Amino acid sequence: MIPSKKDVQEASVRVAPYVHQTPVVTSHLLDAICGASVYFKCENFQKMGAFKMRGAVNAILQLSNEERSRGVVTHSSGNFAQALSLAAKSLSVKAYIVMPSNAPSVKKEAVKGYGGMITESAPTLAAREQEAARIVAETGATFIHPSNNLNVILGQGTAAFELLKTHPDLEVVLTPVGGGGLVAGTALSVHYFGKNCITIGGEPSVADDAFRSLQSGVIETNKTAPTIADGLRTNLGDVNFPIIKELVPKIICVDETEIIAAMKLLWERLKIVIEPSSAVPFAALLKEKERFRNKKIGIILSGGNVDLLHLPF
Amino acid sequence: MIPSKKDVQEASVRVAPYVHQTPVVTSHLLDAICGASVYFKCENFQKMGAFKMRGAVNAILQLSNEERSRGVVTHSSGNFAQALSLAAKSLSVKAYIVMPSNAPSVKKEAVKGYGGMITESAPTLAAREQEAARIVAETGATFIHPSNNLNVILGQGTAAFELLKTHPDLEVVLTPVGGGGLVAGTALSVHYFGKNCITIGGEPSVADDAFRSLQSGVIETNKTAPTIADGLRTNLGDVNFPIIKELVPKIICVDETEIIAAMKLLWERLKIVIEPSSAVPFAALLKEKERFRNKKIGIILSGGNVDLLHLPF
Repeated sequence: MIPSKKDVQEASVRVAPYVHQTPVVTSHLLDAICGASVYFKCENFQKMGAFKMRGAVNAILQLSNEERSRGVVTHSSGNFAQALSLAAKSLSVKAYIVMPSNAPSVKKEAVKGYGGMITESAPTLAAREQEAARIVAETGATFIHPSNNLNVILGQGTAAFELLKTHPDLEVVLTPVGGGGLVAGTALSVHYFGKNCITIGGEPSVADDAFRSLQSGVIETNKTAPTIADGLRTNLGDVNFPIIKELVPKIICVDETEIIAAMKLLWERLKIVIEPSSAVPFAALLKEKERFRNKKIGIILSGGNVDLLHLPF
Repeated sequence: MIPSKKDVQEASVRVAPYVHQTPVVTSHLLDAICGASVYFKCENFQKMGAFKMRGAVNAILQLSNEERSRGVVTHSSGNFAQALSLAAKSLSVKAYIVMPSNAPSVKKEAVKGYGGMITESAPTLAAREQEAARIVAETGATFIHPSNNLNVILGQGTAAFELLKTHPDLEVVLTPVGGGGLVAGTALSVHYFGKNCITIGGEPSVADDAFRSLQSGVIETNKTAPTIADGLRTNLGDVNFPIIKELVPKIICVDETEIIAAMKLLWERLKIVIEPSSAVPFAALLKEKERFRNKKIGIILSGGNVDLLHLPF
């Protein structure tokens, strides 16, 4: 069930030519505030502005030539739609993107800009899934789930793999938890390539399905997910949950005001643009400082795609 | 009048241990928009968030031990107040900072945070100068002007020196023009270390004193300077103007809406936080694209100290 060390290493070699080896930044002032040494892996500087490029590239690269010739399909209103479009374009593969009819036009434009072919569906998960299934049936394209796909998970883990390569003595790596792809991939890299290092997730309190899933041992869902961290509103899946259950000992929940305050602090001190979801693990660190005191912490800053006209502060 | 090649090189060696060698970033999309190859030197990631750290460090390092023991003085409501405070602290020197009584409290707090000792003055240039003169008389501290001081100018030029070291084939380096320290220092580095490279300034149309000074051949002033680029409201001085007259062939003026649009575009695409002044040279490039077509352009992104609660977009 759990991929091997070799799987993780091979994914890292596979995606490297197609993604940025993003920088790692630090701040004396933030370290002083946290009482820890924090290394921020800047996936906001990744191609298309988020770590999702990694998983999309890895998934497409694992397809046969025959499969690639028929294209790929996903349904997403967020970063994965852009990631799959750009990854497909880089590899000369067609990308069919199912987006809900109420998706913001700026997101549709971004997908089109990366060459994705958009099909609109009614704004429900069932309608999106049905539309994607129709495209698969008609075109023979391969469906790639944004987070519940092993090759996507392995791709997302390459950010932490890179981080541990340059900072092998990290004691904790923190990531946001949304659909579970990033935290599961990160946990695999940490498990195989960390030295005495663990993975901890940060999750919005108002979308705490993963926190509850770890407690109950089965996949829980959110009835509502009214969080500003728009990348974290989704639920775990049956491919990533077993990995998370095995390798992520703890998820810390944070309130919306804590997310916004953490986001503003990161913008002010690191002088970088990150999306609200990226601030969640740092908010978790600030919330439970004692747990992390004097440790060396890695944080995956997941992305930088934020609407500058509607900032929360 | 014009410093020598050796002066420029020595300043670079002198300040290197005390400043960040800031990264240079690029964007395929911005290159496509500009029709040129643009290399952004990220002084927003510099210590205290702006290039001014360089000039402050260089100026203090040029003082004798005797002078250092008596401290340094400046008057500034902006980045130089923070820069001199932090540079002085790094070198165990006292910094007396004269700030107008109406300076935002966030700026006063930042200066205090870096160890600067603040004296308030009435909010006029005359009152600030008088207060600084009083401190010089009473303490024997050395007055260091934010932009009209040769060692400050040489320090500011080290950003372009670093940029040319990693990108020796730049054909143009663009900087904002405010008090003249950055553009003069940059012009010196470009003159001595560029290969067929020139320096061009960007200036707000509503504070176009340097543009008019280049035309008339004497230092012109602004009656008003209602620009969002708050670092560029000041006038040139008799130390930097001769250098600018000799080595800066062109200043391009841009409107406020052009500055704001350029700032937003840089935030969105580079995922970095820059202050409005930093967007001015990029706005100049966008405004006169034909002049720069297919060229290799360096841009000094001067700083990232911006009030996130009062963004212009």
